[in-house]
Formats: sequence, C-alpha cells, structure tokens
Amino acid sequence: MATYREAGVDIDAGEELVRRIKPAVRTTFTGAVQQDIGAFGGFFELDTSGLKRPVLVSSVDGVGTKLEVAYLAGRHDGVGQDLVNHCINDIAVCGARPLFFLDYYATGKLDVDAAEAVVLGFAKACRAAGVALIGGETAEMPGMYEGSKYDLAGTIVGVVDHDQIITGATVQPGDVLIGLPSTGLHTNGYSLARKVLLNAFTIEDRPSALHGASLADALLAVHRSYLDTIQALLAKRVVQGMAHVTGGGIPGNIKRVMPEGMRAAVDYDAWHRPPLFELIQSTGNVPEEDMRRTFNLGIGLILVVRPDDAPETMALLRDRGEDPVSIGHVVEG
Amino acid sequence: MATYREAGVDIDAGEELVRRIKPAVRTTFTGAVQQDIGAFGGFFELDTSGLKRPVLVSSVDGVGTKLEVAYLAGRHDGVGQDLVNHCINDIAVCGARPLFFLDYYATGKLDVDAAEAVVLGFAKACRAAGVALIGGETAEMPGMYEGSKYDLAGTIVGVVDHDQIITGATVQPGDVLIGLPSTGLHTNGYSLARKVLLNAFTIEDRPSALHGASLADALLAVHRSYLDTIQALLAKRVVQGMAHVTGGGIPGNIKRVMPEGMRAAVDYDAWHRPPLFELIQSTGNVPEEDMRRTFNLGIGLILVVRPDDAPETMALLRDRGEDPVSIGHVVEG
Repeated sequence: MATYREAGVDIDAGEELVRRIKPAVRTTFTGAVQQDIGAFGGFFELDTSGLKRPVLVSSVDGVGTKLEVAYLAGRHDGVGQDLVNHCINDIAVCGARPLFFLDYYATGKLDVDAAEAVVLGFAKACRAAGVALIGGETAEMPGMYEGSKYDLAGTIVGVVDHDQIITGATVQPGDVLIGLPSTGLHTNGYSLARKVLLNAFTIEDRPSALHGASLADALLAVHRSYLDTIQALLAKRVVQGMAHVTGGGIPGNIKRVMPEGMRAAVDYDAWHRPPLFELIQSTGNVPEEDMRRTFNLGIGLILVVRPDDAPETMALLRDRGEDPVSIGHVVEG
Repeated sequence: MATYREAGVDIDAGEELVRRIKPAVRTTFTGAVQQDIGAFGGFFELDTSGLKRPVLVSSVDGVGTKLEVAYLAGRHDGVGQDLVNHCINDIAVCGARPLFFLDYYATGKLDVDAAEAVVLGFAKACRAAGVALIGGETAEMPGMYEGSKYDLAGTIVGVVDHDQIITGATVQPGDVLIGLPSTGLHTNGYSLARKVLLNAFTIEDRPSALHGASLADALLAVHRSYLDTIQALLAKRVVQGMAHVTGGGIPGNIKRVMPEGMRAAVDYDAWHRPPLFELIQSTGNVPEEDMRRTFNLGIGLILVVRPDDAPETMALLRDRGEDPVSIGHVVEG
C-alpha cells in the first residue's frame, strides 16, 4: 500500500512486512478509497449525499498497557482489533459513521511476525466495520523502545450530519440506562489488573475462578465493537445519549452525556459481574470504589432512553443477540 | 479541551497539563470546530462549498529519533511544530488544504513542562497554518518508556477537490525541478546524524563549521511548513508535481511523482549544501550515496513545472521571499 510507510526501519524487514499485510489491507478498501492516486497521503472520497451539514468526527487512541500482556503472552493478533474497535466505539456514540483509520506502530526493532499480526488485526476489525485502513507509519527507534516491544496509536475519522449528533442534550430525569456487556477489560485498567494478577499468577495460569480460561485468554479478550448495534438503534431514533465505558469506568464516562443538573444513578448489583473482575478484586483486595473508577465491570456501552422506549429498545437488542441490562436511571442533582 | 484525554496518567499531572495547554489549543479552533458538542470525539464541520468531489487526504507521522536530540538538549518547544509541519507538507503536496490535526503523546512518566512545550508547539504550528488541533491522547506507560522520555505521533486530515489532486500524472520529459531550501534535517536522518556527530561532539558544542550555532541549535531547527507557498503556486496552476523531501532523501521522494518511463535528473552541485550536512559527511566519512539517500541535503520541497513556466514560477517564489533553485529536470528512462 502506497501510504504504508516505514521510518528508519530495516529495509528488508519493512518490505517484507508490507508484502505480507498488503492483501489484507486491500480488503478494507471501500469504493471511497482512491487507491491509485498519489503516494504521500491516504485518499478517501467523501460521499456527502443525504448529509445537510457533514461534520467530521475524529478520535485518537492507544491500547495502553494491554500491550504488556500481549508481549508477555506472545500473542499479538488481538491488540490491533482492540485499537480499531475502541476508536470506532468512541465516535459511534456521537452518532458518527466511521470512515477510515490510520495507525502508528513504533518499535525498537521491527519484529515482522508481531507487526504482521497487529496489522492483520487492524484490517480484520476495519473490514468488519466497513472502515478503510488507509494509512500507517511504522517507525523503528532502538533508543526509545526496548527490543521488539512496540507501541500503537490509531486515529479514526467518521462523519455525521450536524443535526444527528448525539450529545446527551435531550437526556431527562427518569430516563433509563441500558448497559450492554463488555467482552472483558476492553482496553482499560491494565496497569492495576497486571499489578494485582501477575503478582499472584503467571500469564498462562488458569485460576479456577476463570472456569478453564488462562489469564492470557481473559486479559487479551478483544475489545468489542458496538457499531452495528448502535446504528440499528439510531435508525429507531430512541437514543438520547450513549457512553462508551473506557478509562474512568462507568462513572467517569456516563457523566459526559449527563446535562447540567443531572446525574446517573447506577445500580451496581443489577448485573452479574464477570469472573475476571471478581478475581482482580479478591486477589488484590481492591476497594469497590477503585474497581468502579478503573474498570468497566462488565458493561462496555450504556444507552440512555426514555422510560417509554425502554421495553422496545430491550426487545430490539435481544433480537440482535445482545444481552442488555437495565442498570439504572437518570436523576436530578 | 474536552477531547484532550489522558490514559493512565497521574490525575493531578494530567489536569495540570490540560489547564496549561487549553488556551493555546483554543487559539487553533477555526469556525469549523464544533467545540461545544459532545465529549468523546473531535468535531469539525466540513465546508464542501466549491468542492465538486471532496476527497479527504490524511497522513500519520512521527518525529523519529529527533526526539532523542530534544531529550538530550532538554528543549521540547520545536518537536511539536516539526510533527505538525511534516504532516502538513505531506498532504499539501497532493494539493490538499489541511483542516485538522490530532496528536498522541506517550511517555513513561508525564513531565508536565516537557508535554506543555510540545503541545504549545503543536498549537503554534497549527495556528500558523489555519489547522485546528481538535484532539489528543496522552498516555503514561512506565513499562514501555524510560522515565519521562516520550514518543509522538500525529495525524492530519485535509481536503481537496478530486480534479485538483496533484499526482505527477502530467509530468513530462523536459519539465524543470525547482528546489526550495530546507531549514535543516527537518525530521529525517537523525539516527545517522546522531551516530556521527554525538561521537565527535557534545550537544552543546559549537563546531566552527556551524558558524557559531551549537549542535543542538542546528539539529533542532524546526521543520518548516511549505503550505503558504504551495497554495500560492497552486492558484497559478503551474505545478505538475511536488515532492516533500523526507525519508529516502531527494531520490526516494521525487520518484513518487515521476510517471512510468521517466526519472528525475538532479544536479547535486546546483545548490549550496548547508554546513550541517557538510559537517556530518566530513566527520563521519559518510559516502555521498548514503548522504543522498538519507538527508534532504538542503532541499525540503521540489516542484515540477513546465520549462515555459519556470521563469514565472521562480519570480513568484522570489517575490514571496523564497530562495528557489533550479536543481534539474525530468528525463526519459
């Protein structure tokens, strides 16, 4: 791919990587990608038909120290998906349709196998969401990163019509909070989780609490995308606000869509907390307040709907194979 | 700024950073930035008036090991500008007008002063180019980065009308190559430059070849933006192709705008090579071929114009205070 460049990377390794990832990257190219023009930038033709006031919505993210778990386990196929899905969810909750993604992969020494696994992960998650992977930068900086350790950053750009932006401005007291399950820690809380769990277990241990799964399996579970479900709900026009539960946990994220003078009253006993969170809390004697401020606790997305719309919304979610939970409501104060 | 988030960063340090950078970041907000809506993503209203087929052009980049020079010298005010200007040039050579920029700042331990200097650099360069700094992620990952060392990545998004994209497709044999001076190494060749120069000098040494400047001064000279000059030339419709001279030097970049069956014949004696490049070559006995494949050698941008348009283009450039040089022409083969 023309816009997949390398900076300071060993030429043979860089070319080998591009050769390996090119077919998968190309499978993400939607009709909007102008792949045969130019070589310096990624080109994406924006279809503005049907949009009165197109607003571009963008977000940049990293994977954080989940990467340390990937190194330790030698498993690199999930973190690329994690990053794309994290970015997708971040803009999808504003009502945006994600269009394209660019990545930054920086390492001390390019491990072509690891980088290939990561980029194939980007491509897999992009393809599933109809997002074009239109650019990337691979940088080799031996003085900055130890060995073949790498860091990742990703930027997503999407579009939404101005009047369709979901801000939470219409949220009212009495509105219902519906939670959708996470697949695990997603990409937050890994510093605390690692500190607690890797003090007590090895990454390949299978604590009985995890019912057969290894710590690596549980900690590397892929951050899911809520895009399809969000778009199905947007079509029904029942959503007043949405929060992607990332750093800061449920309280740190739901407050972003609470208008002045309102807050979310969350019943933390309303759902079954997945065993990984229980294991972290019991192993590390982590105070409940820290658990709530650090982890998603099993709820990766929160939807705010009118009480009257709640039953239909729950039914629609169940029809889609989701397992929604009513986790609280909006109150004054 | 709502979209300036921190991941795993010490809360006090993160809040202090946001407090310090907020005013400068806000000065980059053009009318297109929707700053009061939502909190998860950066919102930018795209003005498509006058565009028949709007194509979004994006690019992601890092600063590479120029950062090592910044750490060594303890000077962090330039690298933010370097990154923004590098990104701007990369898409401006396609004919695109840059719209907005997002950054990723990852470190072992957040040094608020260094991070502030870097982000103020982003804001300065964005403001100068009319680019909105609409998002950023600051990540603290102690296991990944040593101490307060940091890495940076930036993503820029711009727009161009489909039929105005500059690809080099119209380049013909006989076309003239006009070079514009660089301000220094820009952001490429720092691994070689550091290896050679820091073996022989300290970062604060003032080798006589540099006429009074320290090595830090010379190596940290800010990567300039060519945006205004490029846009003035585009308005004249004389440009057949443009190359931003980055990794790979002049040969590695000019070839991107050479159509099949043509190549650039560059006369490397046509311009005065700045003393920093001479110092690197003489100190390290670096073969000429390596110099050409690694450094811009004093030419940061190359314009391809018809021979008939060359005199007028040179005059226009001089009127703008540029110091253009005719550095060769396009030949068959």
